Amino acid sequence: MKIAHTLPLMILLAAVSVTASPDPESRSSVIEGAERLIEYELEHSGAWDVVAHLADMIGPRPSGSPNAAEAVRWTTETLESWGLEVRNEPVIVPRWVRGREEGWLTSHRDQQIILTALGGSVATDEEGLEASVVEVRSLEEVDELGEAVRGKIVLYNLPMDMELVEQGRAFEAYSKVAGLRGSGASRAARHGAVAMLIRSLTSASLRSVHTGALRYTEGDPKIPAAAVSPEDADLIHRLLQRGNDVTMKLVLTPRKLPDVESANVVAELRGRELPEEIVLIGGHLDSWDLGTGAIDNGAGVAGTMEALRAMVELGLRPRRTVRLVLFANEEMGLRGARAYFANHEDSLDRHFATLESDAGATEPTGFATTLPAERIAALGEYLQPLERLGAANFTTARLVGADTSPLSVAGVPGFGLRPNSRHYFDYHHSAADTLDKIDPEELKQNAAAIAALTWILAEMPVDTLRAPEE
Amino acid sequence: MKIAHTLPLMILLAAVSVTASPDPESRSSVIEGAERLIEYELEHSGAWDVVAHLADMIGPRPSGSPNAAEAVRWTTETLESWGLEVRNEPVIVPRWVRGREEGWLTSHRDQQIILTALGGSVATDEEGLEASVVEVRSLEEVDELGEAVRGKIVLYNLPMDMELVEQGRAFEAYSKVAGLRGSGASRAARHGAVAMLIRSLTSASLRSVHTGALRYTEGDPKIPAAAVSPEDADLIHRLLQRGNDVTMKLVLTPRKLPDVESANVVAELRGRELPEEIVLIGGHLDSWDLGTGAIDNGAGVAGTMEALRAMVELGLRPRRTVRLVLFANEEMGLRGARAYFANHEDSLDRHFATLESDAGATEPTGFATTLPAERIAALGEYLQPLERLGAANFTTARLVGADTSPLSVAGVPGFGLRPNSRHYFDYHHSAADTLDKIDPEELKQNAAAIAALTWILAEMPVDTLRAPEE
Repeated sequence: MKIAHTLPLMILLAAVSVTASPDPESRSSVIEGAERLIEYELEHSGAWDVVAHLADMIGPRPSGSPNAAEAVRWTTETLESWGLEVRNEPVIVPRWVRGREEGWLTSHRDQQIILTALGGSVATDEEGLEASVVEVRSLEEVDELGEAVRGKIVLYNLPMDMELVEQGRAFEAYSKVAGLRGSGASRAARHGAVAMLIRSLTSASLRSVHTGALRYTEGDPKIPAAAVSPEDADLIHRLLQRGNDVTMKLVLTPRKLPDVESANVVAELRGRELPEEIVLIGGHLDSWDLGTGAIDNGAGVAGTMEALRAMVELGLRPRRTVRLVLFANEEMGLRGARAYFANHEDSLDRHFATLESDAGATEPTGFATTLPAERIAALGEYLQPLERLGAANFTTARLVGADTSPLSVAGVPGFGLRPNSRHYFDYHHSAADTLDKIDPEELKQNAAAIAALTWILAEMPVDTLRAPEE
Repeated sequence: MKIAHTLPLMILLAAVSVTASPDPESRSSVIEGAERLIEYELEHSGAWDVVAHLADMIGPRPSGSPNAAEAVRWTTETLESWGLEVRNEPVIVPRWVRGREEGWLTSHRDQQIILTALGGSVATDEEGLEASVVEVRSLEEVDELGEAVRGKIVLYNLPMDMELVEQGRAFEAYSKVAGLRGSGASRAARHGAVAMLIRSLTSASLRSVHTGALRYTEGDPKIPAAAVSPEDADLIHRLLQRGNDVTMKLVLTPRKLPDVESANVVAELRGRELPEEIVLIGGHLDSWDLGTGAIDNGAGVAGTMEALRAMVELGLRPRRTVRLVLFANEEMGLRGARAYFANHEDSLDRHFATLESDAGATEPTGFATTLPAERIAALGEYLQPLERLGAANFTTARLVGADTSPLSVAGVPGFGLRPNSRHYFDYHHSAADTLDKIDPEELKQNAAAIAALTWILAEMPVDTLRAPEE
């Protein structure tokens, strides 16, 4: 079915200053298309096939790796096979590979401490280092200890707030501890610490370790950094509480290799009426190295690719261009996002909206958006199709996803899918991020929400997203 | 308080043939003592201190290891410090240590397979071996495949029955799959397989691996054997289902070292009236090497040691002797249990009953027993103190614990504590068996149930355990 479309753009643009309600025919083209996409996804979604290929057939896709290159090749080929225009926009990405990762409590019968290096960590000597462990719960506590951490290993031991996690606010719980992982090494090094450990950022553990990137700050010494399992953090805590001196030997031998040329994969379904206006959808194609990147972010890649495939399959060509971007290297420093922004800075005003999926594969609970509530309210009738998915709940946030954050900061209205987050951090950045963690039925609902909102944004006849004064 | 005790034994023994009900005064000495022990344990249990020392301060205690020797030394010293008679009965135990444990899917981009050697496994060559993977679900299926497994790696991929686990019957679920781990390698080797893998026997996983002993059978080649994580088993299953040939490289370099002299730790509280009659309580002191053996079996050691400590502390000396046995090397072949049986075979008829704790640290749900239901019914009034703990549920089984199994087979009435098993196999034989998995309040209830039943068995004035014809 071709969507009916009659009113010229000028009249629509004039109408918006009077009322946000467009003519009934245009409204029905938005709603009908969204409903068809939802029904199609719930029945015939191909999202599983994509995430299954990425996770099982390619596997871990860390920045700069041969697997990451294969993911670029395979998604490009797959998108082309769907009849889309596809290009690879080069991005220079870092390459960092693990070596030995071992720790023992030399003060306590050489008990093994299970740990994994943080992404980007420098190495210890081959023989490792040995030092006393000091436990803290915040960056401020390190500053307060000051010289007392000199020559020591600093352990940041702050669990995720499980009450927030249980309330469905796992990303808030994560954001309260993620700064320790990013900044903890440099902060400890500033006061003379020789290594940094952090309790794995997770909402579940079976002696599990969760990696993630750190950021060394200019001017501070670079010290090795690793995440220990919550159980190991608890053990060290108990030993210290009992008044023991705890010393540890640490061997970490990761290596930073030369940068590699990778690419953002960019595919477009050209708009039938406003092709110069772009609704950018997507997520990152790289993953961490420990798991196979099924939920982070094979699912986001699959869901956003699938939105395009479904539109092609149903013959639904929206007013605006839908541009899919599969970003290179989100995990090790957002190089893909930065390259995209730099390459397209001169067309920012043609970016109508963004929709990022990088929060997992479970059923949708709604979307985060950079728009204020009154703008969302004005879109009310367009968003109604999302209700049957439980995905019509919009909450305002300054940023809605990592890869679209430069665009959000520049004022492009942003949306980020928010699936049920209860178990997301059980697996996130760990070896347990594997395909079996995805429920095919939930993934369908997830993909349906992405396809529907993509269509709504690309099809809505007027721009009700931006404030009138913009 | 000293328990009142007046009636001579002969009168009691005469009474039992008429009725199982002893005189009211004797009954109250059984029940009052059990109630005092329960109250004491719920308030002042020292079980936590023991399991915390074993798990945190000593750590993993695999058979023949320095840590296992330290556990013998520390428990001996601790029991002596409580005023008990303690001796070490020598046991020669095996010593087996892990080496490299690595696997990759050479057919699928060298994806890493997470695995751990089964206890006692032979090694591959240093360079490893490479072969196709054949998936089966039973020993019989291997026999049916026969020559088709020659030169292959056989993967036993049978999950635990989670319905049984949810019903509180986790040990039944475990027993349905444990035979694959014990016998799977030799069965596959008989038909020419070059290595054996098994899906980890577990009720939860975050890419977790669970070890356990295998038994090579005489006459079959010894092949390397390892447990893969459920996620990895699922991955291989999916790849095979999609029609792929799956080949794998496997490097396992464990080593069998010379046997080591270890010991069963034997401590006694001599009976005040029938010192020659023995109520044997205990569990194994060794653990697997991956975790710190908190639930398997630090908790069982702690609970049974605590029963003796509480009796000493409360001045409760029972009629019969309570003999605590902390068995060496349960995990790698029951050497401690066999040595105990061989050493004490001439006094089997003086073993009144056994009570083993080797099923975890959670709140009790009751006991397994080798006694038929009618014998338990006859003990009804003695067992009443267990009701407030929810521990008065007795179910008949042929065997009730590994270390007491030779005694059970020989006809000594056996009891085995049955804590809530819902999460036991989440941690069992894995790195996640750590102290944090124990809830101190549940451990108190667990210890209270052990202390109470120990007292009841040792104090009851007549032998209602054995059938009259025995």
